[in-house]
Amino acid sequence: MRTSVFIIKGNIVYSKDVHSLEVCEHGYLVCEENRILGVYQTLPFRYGGIPIEDYGDRLIIPGLVDLHVHAPQYSFRGLGMDMELLEWLETNTFPEEAKFQDEEYAKQAYRIFVGHLRKGATTRACIFATVHRPATLLLMDMLEASGMKTLVGKVNMDRNCPNYIQETTEESAEETIRWLREVKQRAYEHTQPILTPRFIPGCSDALMERLKEIQMSNQLPVQSHLSENPSEIDWVKRLCPKAEFYGDAYDQFGLFGRDCKTVMAHCVYSEREELERIKENGVYIAHCPESNINLSSGVAPVRKFLDMGLRVGMGSDVAAGSSVNLFTAMAHAIQASKLRWRMLDNSLKPLTVEEVFYMATKGGGAFFGKAGSFEPGYEMDAVVLDDSGLKHPQELTVKQRLERMVYLSDDRQIYAKYVGGKKLELENW
Amino acid sequence: MRTSVFIIKGNIVYSKDVHSLEVCEHGYLVCEENRILGVYQTLPFRYGGIPIEDYGDRLIIPGLVDLHVHAPQYSFRGLGMDMELLEWLETNTFPEEAKFQDEEYAKQAYRIFVGHLRKGATTRACIFATVHRPATLLLMDMLEASGMKTLVGKVNMDRNCPNYIQETTEESAEETIRWLREVKQRAYEHTQPILTPRFIPGCSDALMERLKEIQMSNQLPVQSHLSENPSEIDWVKRLCPKAEFYGDAYDQFGLFGRDCKTVMAHCVYSEREELERIKENGVYIAHCPESNINLSSGVAPVRKFLDMGLRVGMGSDVAAGSSVNLFTAMAHAIQASKLRWRMLDNSLKPLTVEEVFYMATKGGGAFFGKAGSFEPGYEMDAVVLDDSGLKHPQELTVKQRLERMVYLSDDRQIYAKYVGGKKLELENW
Repeated sequence: MRTSVFIIKGNIVYSKDVHSLEVCEHGYLVCEENRILGVYQTLPFRYGGIPIEDYGDRLIIPGLVDLHVHAPQYSFRGLGMDMELLEWLETNTFPEEAKFQDEEYAKQAYRIFVGHLRKGATTRACIFATVHRPATLLLMDMLEASGMKTLVGKVNMDRNCPNYIQETTEESAEETIRWLREVKQRAYEHTQPILTPRFIPGCSDALMERLKEIQMSNQLPVQSHLSENPSEIDWVKRLCPKAEFYGDAYDQFGLFGRDCKTVMAHCVYSEREELERIKENGVYIAHCPESNINLSSGVAPVRKFLDMGLRVGMGSDVAAGSSVNLFTAMAHAIQASKLRWRMLDNSLKPLTVEEVFYMATKGGGAFFGKAGSFEPGYEMDAVVLDDSGLKHPQELTVKQRLERMVYLSDDRQIYAKYVGGKKLELENW
Repeated sequence: MRTSVFIIKGNIVYSKDVHSLEVCEHGYLVCEENRILGVYQTLPFRYGGIPIEDYGDRLIIPGLVDLHVHAPQYSFRGLGMDMELLEWLETNTFPEEAKFQDEEYAKQAYRIFVGHLRKGATTRACIFATVHRPATLLLMDMLEASGMKTLVGKVNMDRNCPNYIQETTEESAEETIRWLREVKQRAYEHTQPILTPRFIPGCSDALMERLKEIQMSNQLPVQSHLSENPSEIDWVKRLCPKAEFYGDAYDQFGLFGRDCKTVMAHCVYSEREELERIKENGVYIAHCPESNINLSSGVAPVRKFLDMGLRVGMGSDVAAGSSVNLFTAMAHAIQASKLRWRMLDNSLKPLTVEEVFYMATKGGGAFFGKAGSFEPGYEMDAVVLDDSGLKHPQELTVKQRLERMVYLSDDRQIYAKYVGGKKLELENW
């Protein structure tokens, strides 16, 4: 028997599709190196003799995937929520992000962010840093050491922001090239770069052209923001009179799917044409419900996304979202969809636990390849949940216990965590 | 100097009115027995020599007041949220509440509820039990031992519910009278009865008449539900053709404020006439945002309540709300008001941190008399918050730290708790 095979045992829950949960009570998750071989109710004879890590009655789920989070904003999570997007950027976000020019400050702040992310159920994430190359590298060093799999972007922004944080077009492109060179030298195992134009209002046409060149020569994925807030969308219309819609403004520069894997956060106000382009181009949507609530943006029509077969994952969008806890994000997704159904459009049924769990695992995981499920061949990212602290007097099914995790869990329930087949040390970090 | 005076020190935050926060950094909260004498930046000479409990840089706030929570439903918090009110009652609530006929089960379940409530920031609460007299007394015994101040109701319900939980009119009245007699014999210090007709659809006219008699002869306060869900409201219209509106159906029986202190949960769909009656009769509203979201009920127009000068407090409404954490309820109140503003009615501005904090303290506290503030003469309910575990790299003001509590805190931040001037033991419970 191959010695690289290992087995963990517990109440296994995962998604194959968006509509249902696969549950294997007291089942075996058999893995080889960094891959899943299979989930078994009864351990096949051929795996006999291999030691089993038995997690008893605990739950085992795929690692959660955060498709949209701003690392530097973690400092002001839960603060200054009484504004809409553009005012919030000017008042809270840009002043805080400017501090990351100071590497000492960045080190202190990013240590808190990485430490908390690591303690939670997230195993993979798409992360915005700031415009600052040195601080971005520092963040990537820390994330690499954490063992989580991440895509991290130095932000590009050469217009419509305060001087103290604005790059020139040339500087933005050159710093990005230098950043990518330094990333390559570091030869990270878990941490990769992702091209990160902040959003259309922050990036000139000239910068977008340069970024496309950089994207092509480095075969980079792309992350940005799309159709989040009505004022932002109006602004994009004025800035880009030739674009058919907001997403088209990215697409005109080749930074909207097609030949580059792209994830766009929000899509609260994406209309039919934009959604069709998203589908055609294979763009991923990061649904960030708490952010969309806190900034009074609205609620994205996720039911429509799912019905159209779009690729949708969950994003915490800290600090417009207050927490990196993706279980909380799932609860917010269900809750926001209910209020949207009640107050805006009762043709779109509220989301279910099955659907949001799929989005937070396999849905977002697809952006990283075969991640977010326990089907054979998937990367072995798993989280072991101990819900024994959330007491109850009655019997609960495994599915009910998972539903409780969505509404009630915090990092106290995270008992063990595996990324790419490796068990992370959760304490002492 | 009177020896019954005691002093605690820390960053004191409280509300005098709904619009602003009073902040006294490193201030002194001077108390005598169960009452507040005053908040001082510099300790007056006359209090020199009295020992001071110094909580350092921690926050000190008034205890939070939960105006609406169902103790037996705590068992299924975070479960079965994919329904609206009436289906949810039939499917989840009545079957669970029926179990409380078994005193052993009740003991086990209520111990969990009381234990968790005690660990949180709540110091006072209006609590629904079930129809069962013995289990209700058992709950009251436990709450009394906890040291929190509560109003607890045996539920009355003689129609429109499954047989296994339905009382006859006579039985409901007689059991209530017997329950009140037994409560009186127990001579609780912290725990008082509150009359609890479940809601109009669950109570016949004959029962309501009996309950008014019981209310008058015992001078009881009253709690119930009002205008929560469109189907429920239609049903009440059919059941009570003579009532001008839902609230009038209570008022016709004298169970809607005026001569009896009354708190009604929800009021999501209360229209002008009902709101005016609420004002005229001095009825309190328990705003339960998470419940209203989870059951797809909608969002109550709290801005309108405040503008009209109505009496509004916060309710967790477990288990339609998933948590007894009233900080989370405050966050949900702000969040729900933002989506209501965005999707339904932009004439009603979103709620602020100041407003929801007021509602969760002084607003709801008024139902208990002078509670929920640190103004002189108020009852001394205080919670000491240790937010040092929620790390941040920058300086934060006391007000910012309170705002973070609204979004980020759980029971790990509850460092000490005083109710009626007595410090509760938080561990070992």
